[in-house]
Amino acid sequence: MDKINEFRDARDWRQFHNEKDLALSISIEAAELLELFQWKEATEAVEKHPENLKDELADVLIYCYMLADNLGLDIDQIIESKLNKNTSNYPISKSKGQKDKYTELN
Amino acid sequence: MDKINEFRDARDWRQFHNEKDLALSISIEAAELLELFQWKEATEAVEKHPENLKDELADVLIYCYMLADNLGLDIDQIIESKLNKNTSNYPISKSKGQKDKYTELN
Amino acid sequence: MDKINEFRDARDWRQFHNEKDLALSISIEAAELLELFQWKEATEAVEKHPENLKDELADVLIYCYMLADNLGLDIDQIIESKLNKNTSNYPISKSKGQKDKYTELN
Amino acid sequence: MDKINEFRDARDWRQFHNEKDLALSISIEAAELLELFQWKEATEAVEKHPENLKDELADVLIYCYMLADNLGLDIDQIIESKLNKNTSNYPISKSKGQKDKYTELN
Repeated sequence: MDKINEFRDARDWRQFHNEKDLALSISIEAAELLELFQWKEATEAVEKHPENLKDELADVLIYCYMLADNLGLDIDQIIESKLNKNTSNYPISKSKGQKDKYTELN
Repeated sequence: MDKINEFRDARDWRQFHNEKDLALSISIEAAELLELFQWKEATEAVEKHPENLKDELADVLIYCYMLADNLGLDIDQIIESKLNKNTSNYPISKSKGQKDKYTELN
Repeated sequence: MDKINEFRDARDWRQFHNEKDLALSISIEAAELLELFQWKEATEAVEKHPENLKDELADVLIYCYMLADNLGLDIDQIIESKLNKNTSNYPISKSKGQKDKYTELN
Repeated sequence: MDKINEFRDARDWRQFHNEKDLALSISIEAAELLELFQWKEATEAVEKHPENLKDELADVLIYCYMLADNLGLDIDQIIESKLNKNTSNYPISKSKGQKDKYTELN
């Protein structure tokens, strides 16, 4: 996180980095990651673009970290808190081996 | 990362988690995050949905971590490596206070 | 629609065009369109990239039409049917001048 | 197009419909369409969600049409113009039966 902030502050970019454009940037980078899998099976994409996969995934993460920083959020804490909610929505007894959304589980 | 793996392994979900569907899930969650800003200024969205913002950002991160885990990647390492590339693409002298893409910088 | 089909059939591309990859392509092209607005106000983006806007919007539409064709759907009909549903969800009396989602209207 | 405009004008929504938020809405709806294919093969998704597919595809199209209308663009014309560009980028002789991006064709 320190390195990310150092990178953007050295360029005076924080002025452009409002939360809406950061959220928008996460979506854009997520789509660039997804593009590596377009018209391909998962394994084919992973074999063909190993370096690009790292870079595009890193781009998504960098913008996620910037947004978290803007909002004063602790990454580990929001993940843990969300996993706890998911644990309630997807009890092991009902969701084991099931890929259904929790609203469709029974 | 351990908690994320524990969560998905307890539910036998790794069988569904091929890299293509994980990349697709990152895009989907990124869009749910973006939806909180739809028709709103950044500040308005941040004030209106503080809890949802945490949850949706966490969802993006959880799928990013799962994909990194599937690919055997170290999060900190790919971020650092990408920041180094960006440092070359966006030299401070040219990009300070500029929001242009590096292909448009001069 | 005929021209789109002619284009893809001349290239034997229908074999790659399963519905999942078409849906994925719509998302990717939508993000390329969105990228034209990154770090910009709407008016600034529209002035700066008039040609790119046309091209990226056309790309989204082309994949939408291909998906509709794969599914045997009539574009005008699904739009009309969806507008009718929206008319129920967003009655004029409640939603006039309101930007809230219908689940939040009261 | 007339029906779409009638729908939004009856609700005074044009004030919120700047081009940036429309582009953002296209991405959001595209992701909702994509979500129908999450963790599924194409055929499985098509069989399971025929009605939702129509609705989500229609939502993407409705926002595309609104953006085109805001920009004063003719849908058929921008599609035809883009197909002509694609015809140059993807000559039949090189791209027949190939799924590579034109920058990778040889």
